[in-house]
Amino acid sequence: MATTFNSVDPRTGETGPAYEEATLDDVRSAVAAAAAAHRSGALGDRDARALLLRDSASRLRAACDELVAVCEAETGLPEGRLRTELERTCGQFEAFAALLDAGDYVEAIIDTPDPAAKPIPRPDVRRMLVPIGPVAVFGASNFPLAFSTAGGDTASALAAGTPVIVKGHPSHPGTSERVARELAAATAGAGLPEGTFAHLPAASLEVAQALVDAPAVAAVGFTGSYAAGRAIADRAAARPVPIPVYAEMGSVNPIVVTEAALAERADAVAEGLTASVANFGGQLCTKPGVVFVPEGAAGDAFAAAVAGRLQAVEPTVLLNERLRDALREAVGRLEQRVERLSGAAEAGGPGFRHQPSAYRAAARDLEAAPELLEEHFGPVVVFLTYGSRDELLAALERLDGQLTASLHAEPGEDVDALVGALSQRAGRVVFDGFPTGVAVTHGMHHGGPFPATTAPAHTSVGMTAIRRWLRPVAFQDAPAERLPLALRDENPLGIWRRVDGELSREPVPARTG
Amino acid sequence: MATTFNSVDPRTGETGPAYEEATLDDVRSAVAAAAAAHRSGALGDRDARALLLRDSASRLRAACDELVAVCEAETGLPEGRLRTELERTCGQFEAFAALLDAGDYVEAIIDTPDPAAKPIPRPDVRRMLVPIGPVAVFGASNFPLAFSTAGGDTASALAAGTPVIVKGHPSHPGTSERVARELAAATAGAGLPEGTFAHLPAASLEVAQALVDAPAVAAVGFTGSYAAGRAIADRAAARPVPIPVYAEMGSVNPIVVTEAALAERADAVAEGLTASVANFGGQLCTKPGVVFVPEGAAGDAFAAAVAGRLQAVEPTVLLNERLRDALREAVGRLEQRVERLSGAAEAGGPGFRHQPSAYRAAARDLEAAPELLEEHFGPVVVFLTYGSRDELLAALERLDGQLTASLHAEPGEDVDALVGALSQRAGRVVFDGFPTGVAVTHGMHHGGPFPATTAPAHTSVGMTAIRRWLRPVAFQDAPAERLPLALRDENPLGIWRRVDGELSREPVPARTG
Repeated sequence: MATTFNSVDPRTGETGPAYEEATLDDVRSAVAAAAAAHRSGALGDRDARALLLRDSASRLRAACDELVAVCEAETGLPEGRLRTELERTCGQFEAFAALLDAGDYVEAIIDTPDPAAKPIPRPDVRRMLVPIGPVAVFGASNFPLAFSTAGGDTASALAAGTPVIVKGHPSHPGTSERVARELAAATAGAGLPEGTFAHLPAASLEVAQALVDAPAVAAVGFTGSYAAGRAIADRAAARPVPIPVYAEMGSVNPIVVTEAALAERADAVAEGLTASVANFGGQLCTKPGVVFVPEGAAGDAFAAAVAGRLQAVEPTVLLNERLRDALREAVGRLEQRVERLSGAAEAGGPGFRHQPSAYRAAARDLEAAPELLEEHFGPVVVFLTYGSRDELLAALERLDGQLTASLHAEPGEDVDALVGALSQRAGRVVFDGFPTGVAVTHGMHHGGPFPATTAPAHTSVGMTAIRRWLRPVAFQDAPAERLPLALRDENPLGIWRRVDGELSREPVPARTG
Repeated sequence: MATTFNSVDPRTGETGPAYEEATLDDVRSAVAAAAAAHRSGALGDRDARALLLRDSASRLRAACDELVAVCEAETGLPEGRLRTELERTCGQFEAFAALLDAGDYVEAIIDTPDPAAKPIPRPDVRRMLVPIGPVAVFGASNFPLAFSTAGGDTASALAAGTPVIVKGHPSHPGTSERVARELAAATAGAGLPEGTFAHLPAASLEVAQALVDAPAVAAVGFTGSYAAGRAIADRAAARPVPIPVYAEMGSVNPIVVTEAALAERADAVAEGLTASVANFGGQLCTKPGVVFVPEGAAGDAFAAAVAGRLQAVEPTVLLNERLRDALREAVGRLEQRVERLSGAAEAGGPGFRHQPSAYRAAARDLEAAPELLEEHFGPVVVFLTYGSRDELLAALERLDGQLTASLHAEPGEDVDALVGALSQRAGRVVFDGFPTGVAVTHGMHHGGPFPATTAPAHTSVGMTAIRRWLRPVAFQDAPAERLPLALRDENPLGIWRRVDGELSREPVPARTG
């Protein structure tokens, strides 16, 4: 008999429909189909992939009302946010389709031969990126659309031409199933093999482990907690054939506020910070978790103002009971150590709720209490007061790798050392703003040194996210007709290429002799 | 009292000078100095780094005679080869210096803001690559210059702006020490901090392990055996903060020869193959280890011709006793299973020698004897005969990840399936040629799926090798004066950048409003 698990409405705590758990046989079939699709080369058709991406976007948009209704009841996220998130999800698909149209994501490099080169003659070498092989995607609970079944990992991997097997997140199974149906339909519509996309709903560890272990799986994309991300990375590293794991595991996203910035615009910063901490229950991997403020009256007033604003926010529904319990426990530990600035963190009401809250400690306490720098996934912020620039810099040295770090300062302030310290630790440095609301652009970097991610050279948002699923192949002295189109002399795709070191969209000049 | 170890002349087996083993204190000091150099930002000076690279090349060229003499006595490699290898080493330094001059290796991406963007306003996002942090380099025994202390890992990491700590290879300590002296002098000459480059001679495991474990080490470059590379990768993955390991561990570099190619040019292929297998004792990570030939008279004659040519080669000196013993043992196992085509593999003479030799089995035997696809590091080649194209394709499916795969075929032959199978397994596909002699060019890819390397997306040869030591940082809404030069509107470095999706060397157009 099939195992099932139920969705739960976090607004009420009530149990929803039952979903059938994928079996280990389902994993094997999905992986075999993905491997066959990869081997067949069918995903090499760039136009078919662009069609798949665009059609997925259209289909998801068309299903918007139904999707948002299902998703609200599974996540407690407000309708407006979910509509925005769905549009972002569709926009990602379309942005990757445009990247395929442009075509230069393959990073073609052509070195023409030089028989006279020293110390050895130089052959004709032409290199481009090709798909790495089937990819397993583990979506996040907090972005049930944009970082889940049809999220950035799936979009970038399909764009790259790698089959995708999604382990559906058990916190929003109905959403995931509904989304997967559209992607499967778009796959068929684009004439791509069935193995191109698979969805395995699962609440159990077994399915996840079997996916990470499957020999034909070539890479893993993950967004979620440190504990789960690290477990997957460790497991993948211990395989007979280790594979890359691109896990984005969140961080505390430190913000530094200078005395001058407070003097100039404390209210505006307090307002922005409150929203960044509390919006959507603070359940964002870029939520600011620690804010460094100057010791003294200005810093105290600022922290008190933010605490007051957070106290005025309605207790927010969290995504599920597990996250609520984990936050409650972490906050309990925090309260043993540090001063709570806002009212009681306990929240009444049905379902799984938490009252946004603020805490304060001295930055110099970090030496004795490094756990103050732990992530609290939810609407919680810790102010850390610094007595001097040196104390601040010393505290920043204690930070682990971060997705983001932000600085509020005034023009003319000498903040070179601060910017240096922040950019050595973070994947993105935000100036006079807040890290939440990650824009999907060419240059966005949503990554960072461990433990923010397991792969500091890579991003899970933005156009360069496609690189995670590609590897280079060089063709040496290949006859013209054996070369992929991207590497042929005449440049039939019209893409940018590096030819003998220079970027160019021109054909390779004919060689004499 | 200091521990010492001795070099050994593999041509005679005689013990050479003693070298002092680095201590764990030496590791700690080197790592601390490297971390301080990284933190200081001094290596951010692109011109200073280019100077360091060019001066290193000049100094190594000036030391050529002395270096080659020391190296010959430690490796048994012939003088001509070592002179060529030194020139290659210097050329690598100079090529990376030219890459720094061009400057676009930082992959600058600029997305201008769009306050009207949906679903959320788009900020100003500017992203570039920055140094990852101190790098530990483990050089190879078989390229005492080009893949060792001043090899491609060191050159690319210094180019990237990461401090380098080399664990000197115990098989050529005198060479390593002499090379390190020149690099240290070039570092000082370029005005870079002492922590920029360190050399730790060591024959023990402790030093290697301490380097991999050191918290401030951010990445590892390695060239060598599978056993050592895997051990380092496993250890790095188990750190509290795992770090990337770029290990190049060799492969069997399969060659496929079609019946038509044999009919047309068997002699030329036999001559090229013999050189590729036997040159420098076959001690190259790209040495062809298995060659697929058609069953029957033509394939037999070809294999016999190669075997005869190998038998005629003088027994070659191997790099050290350990490699000689390992090869002897592996060949002993091989001889239990398969037919030896050439005469006895035992080699007389002083020192550590091996007779180049050839073996033959049927490709269909791979099912029962997958160990036929193991690497034999030395002048040894295994012919695998195939009865049909399907049998050949089935055999290729059994191949692990490879650095290279080569195909000898004739124009007009339908080899699409073969090229597809080879490029799914290898980092470089060579047509009608041989994989040894890796050209240092922009597009060279010296990498491949595991176990060829631990990082299939990366290369250890060619200009893109620099990417291993870089990670992206995005700056969001940064005031102009806080931006690195590479990201400023006016493009003061004159580099290629991707601005709003388009490659350009122009300044960012002034925005209205």
